[in-house]
Amino acid sequence: TDAERGRQKAAVCVACHGADGIAVIAEYPNLAGQKVKYLQLAIKAYRDGERRHAVMSPMAAGLSEQDIADIAAFYASLPPAGTSSSK
Amino acid sequence: TDAERGRQKAAVCVACHGADGIAVIAEYPNLAGQKVKYLQLAIKAYRDGERRHAVMSPMAAGLSEQDIADIAAFYASLPPAGTSSSK
Repeated sequence: TDAERGRQKAAVCVACHGADGIAVIAEYPNLAGQKVKYLQLAIKAYRDGERRHAVMSPMAAGLSEQDIADIAAFYASLPPAGTSSSK
Repeated sequence: TDAERGRQKAAVCVACHGADGIAVIAEYPNLAGQKVKYLQLAIKAYRDGERRHAVMSPMAAGLSEQDIADIAAFYASLPPAGTSSSK
């Protein structure tokens, strides 16, 4: 599925956004349970320059449409409150 | 508290992001339970031009530091899965 591919493609994302989609850094967003369409648009906004961020802009620069769909599907599939007491 | 002031200041925000912080539109993010620091940074990014969005850029343009702190505190205080079956 998209989400399963996305989990693999998100290997680098989890360093900041957490393996369960609950960010490990206060300045970064939780992504768990976020709307899939919004996640796609947010990544594309970094890729296409509508958002500028020192980390996310280069991260998104090389992503294909399929990569973005997969990664968004993965994070959207996670429970919004996290899988532990990680929030 | 900040969150109580924020609830009042967020009167216009809820049209898209939901009274419980669960967005009513697929293209827009849920904000309930999001990290307060991230919410502040995101609003400031729209205000300061690091993010460009047809709705959010003008929405954020007139916000003070205190407005941003209050609105962020309000959305961060809401349960991440929503208060009903609204997700």
